[in-house]
Amino acid sequence: MDADIVETTLQDVRQALDERDITRAVRLLHGLLPPDQADVFEELELDEQRVLLPRLRLPEAADILEELEDEYAALLARRLSPAALARIVDQMEPDEAADLLGDLDAALSTAVLARMEEADEVRPLLVHPDESAGGRMTTEFLAFRESMTVRQALLTMRRTEDHILEVPRLFVADTEGRLVGAVDLYALLRADASTTLGDLMDREIATVHPEDDQEVAARLMLHYDLPVVPVVDAEGCLVGVITGDDLVEVLEEEATEDIQRIGGSEPLGASYLGSSIWSAIRARLGWLVLLLVTTALAGTIMSLYEEQLQEVIILAFFIPMLMDAGGNAGSQTIANVIRALAVGDITLGDALKVLARESRAGLVLGLVLGICAYVIALVWSPGLVALTVGLSVGAVITWANLLGAVLPLFAVRIGQDPALVSGPLLTTIIDVTGLLIYFTIARLVLGI
Amino acid sequence: MDADIVETTLQDVRQALDERDITRAVRLLHGLLPPDQADVFEELELDEQRVLLPRLRLPEAADILEELEDEYAALLARRLSPAALARIVDQMEPDEAADLLGDLDAALSTAVLARMEEADEVRPLLVHPDESAGGRMTTEFLAFRESMTVRQALLTMRRTEDHILEVPRLFVADTEGRLVGAVDLYALLRADASTTLGDLMDREIATVHPEDDQEVAARLMLHYDLPVVPVVDAEGCLVGVITGDDLVEVLEEEATEDIQRIGGSEPLGASYLGSSIWSAIRARLGWLVLLLVTTALAGTIMSLYEEQLQEVIILAFFIPMLMDAGGNAGSQTIANVIRALAVGDITLGDALKVLARESRAGLVLGLVLGICAYVIALVWSPGLVALTVGLSVGAVITWANLLGAVLPLFAVRIGQDPALVSGPLLTTIIDVTGLLIYFTIARLVLGI
Repeated sequence: MDADIVETTLQDVRQALDERDITRAVRLLHGLLPPDQADVFEELELDEQRVLLPRLRLPEAADILEELEDEYAALLARRLSPAALARIVDQMEPDEAADLLGDLDAALSTAVLARMEEADEVRPLLVHPDESAGGRMTTEFLAFRESMTVRQALLTMRRTEDHILEVPRLFVADTEGRLVGAVDLYALLRADASTTLGDLMDREIATVHPEDDQEVAARLMLHYDLPVVPVVDAEGCLVGVITGDDLVEVLEEEATEDIQRIGGSEPLGASYLGSSIWSAIRARLGWLVLLLVTTALAGTIMSLYEEQLQEVIILAFFIPMLMDAGGNAGSQTIANVIRALAVGDITLGDALKVLARESRAGLVLGLVLGICAYVIALVWSPGLVALTVGLSVGAVITWANLLGAVLPLFAVRIGQDPALVSGPLLTTIIDVTGLLIYFTIARLVLGI
Repeated sequence: MDADIVETTLQDVRQALDERDITRAVRLLHGLLPPDQADVFEELELDEQRVLLPRLRLPEAADILEELEDEYAALLARRLSPAALARIVDQMEPDEAADLLGDLDAALSTAVLARMEEADEVRPLLVHPDESAGGRMTTEFLAFRESMTVRQALLTMRRTEDHILEVPRLFVADTEGRLVGAVDLYALLRADASTTLGDLMDREIATVHPEDDQEVAARLMLHYDLPVVPVVDAEGCLVGVITGDDLVEVLEEEATEDIQRIGGSEPLGASYLGSSIWSAIRARLGWLVLLLVTTALAGTIMSLYEEQLQEVIILAFFIPMLMDAGGNAGSQTIANVIRALAVGDITLGDALKVLARESRAGLVLGLVLGICAYVIALVWSPGLVALTVGLSVGAVITWANLLGAVLPLFAVRIGQDPALVSGPLLTTIIDVTGLLIYFTIARLVLGI
């Protein structure tokens, strides 16, 4: 964030490394806060990183591995010895450790786990996919009994490791491990020392299952303003918790994916500079080729009207305007609808409301744009051609607007991500159908 | 979130209201958690809301006003008496209360403030724009002296209102009110009772100023994983804090705005269904008309080449394919670059890196797509026309890809939001310039 500190330190670290003064490089890094350490660290060469990382203090090395892109972290981890790696991974949050180990090959991952002290916290997390609630959760949480008093709870917490306490809520489980309630830290602070947690706790708490999508957990936390959400298995036993920092990460990831999809590529799955140029090209190429073949259809349609076009060549001049107007209107609608679906503003149940709204908006926009197009066309074409253009632009915009709402809703209906229907896909469909509308209206108005 | 509970309760509440049994309607609402209460509430008619709101328990009425869209909350607030409104606003978070009062006219806002008990907490917040750090901050925070012991701090906190304690960090200020440090709640819990806050506190803390953009505060919290960020004035005095729930709101708002801009409309500034259809049309119309006029240029360019087109009419058939291919590639790039800028993956300092990357990606994509286009064109046109099409598609894609990176970076350079350069704007520019490229290549290859 503080670009100056990062930039200055990076130069100093590089100089120290050039002079093979690793101790100074380490000291320079230790002078920064962990997120800034990671920023400096990721600018270094892999070989420099490999030398530096095991020399850093363990908690800081762990923080850096957590902050690095998953791909990079795995690349670097493979260069370390299993023993050195195990010491660092022991200091990572269990969910982050599981993500990293999951990205390594099985032999290395097993070797590291065998050398770890806290392998038991990480092992159960390895079975969950990264993007599920189970993949997001951490096994570091506080779970006490109902009969415990506030005094006992506070004393226990004083003997607990720092980072577990960062969760501002503790959970209450029965003897079978089933979740029965939750107590906020501040409620604990204000309560009488002899009160039991059972008296203090909220009994109605929202939970998620490990196999739920991470977005379900995020939306739940957002809706109920929860600092942390417990993850329970089929028996109702508490197996982990998802914390606020995960919420933010999930929401940011999902927004990024949606934006990339709306733009018409597959999600990069990593940061912009963190992804290789080839993976970025792969994410984009499929859609581009598919859409190219589809738009070739537009050419076929035009060739069907070759005679009319040759007769009234001026009709061709308005094709770019017509196609763009439709594509633009559709692109606005689809972006708004996809986002509204993503943040839960609308659901499939609102489909009729949305379609009614976009039909009306489409008619108004079509009317206004149609008149504009008519006036523009009048400048360099006869009245009937201008009329054709105006009517077509109006019709195409109304149609595009409706389609921009129908397609993402339809995607949800068949269980797909609405953002799969990207702007480019929509534009291509509108262009092909828009030409049909154009030539049909031309035939009716101009009698060609 | 839990659609069933909301739906069922909504029907029951409506039935109760139809039978004029307001007591039952209130009881039904009280059975839900506040976020669900708001979901039910916002489905009711304004007149029903006006009757119900003052009958609800005050903290719950306050929660509902906080959860409602700003526009709706103001609409409803205007229907209440200043005295009733003041009682509810007194229970709102000061920053939310200030947002609401700021949306009312001055006379009503003054009348409400005059009747409020906690007007002093809200008044200083009224001067800050909604989207600044000052507009986001709350004045409810804990600020203690350095010399205070842990025991004293804990005792004070036991006498403090619940919701202030939800902030998991307390601040330390000197006698002038200047911020000197911060202590995490969990550090407090673990410390010896006789330790002073001065011994315990972090002295290096990230701060923002009230006039900073809310996004600056959000990115700082995200980068340093802060649960709360203090807002200090020019003298370094602590004037407020921004909490985690605000962070999430800001990030979600910014992502929504970016998606709407990328789609080619002005941000709606409210939820999809929460905004009126007319404001949605207004947000979209300006861009659509501007882009329509711009694409009319494409027609002008084509008319300059009217003779050539009439000679080789088949050239016209490939115009939609050419335009879409360029637009699609540009749209992918711009979405990726805008998002990378928004999340801080890249800054203006990375401009050369980004341009190098997108030039290379553009060349590769142009080569592949150009060959595809050549093959497609061969199906129904002579070899030289197909060559023209292939070369043009290749050139346009390379050009579009570069432009998709240059334009948002340029927007940042001149101090604008990169998302202002939307997909539709880019597409329009590419279409006009793409036609020039096409006809130039046609002239060279076909000699027309």
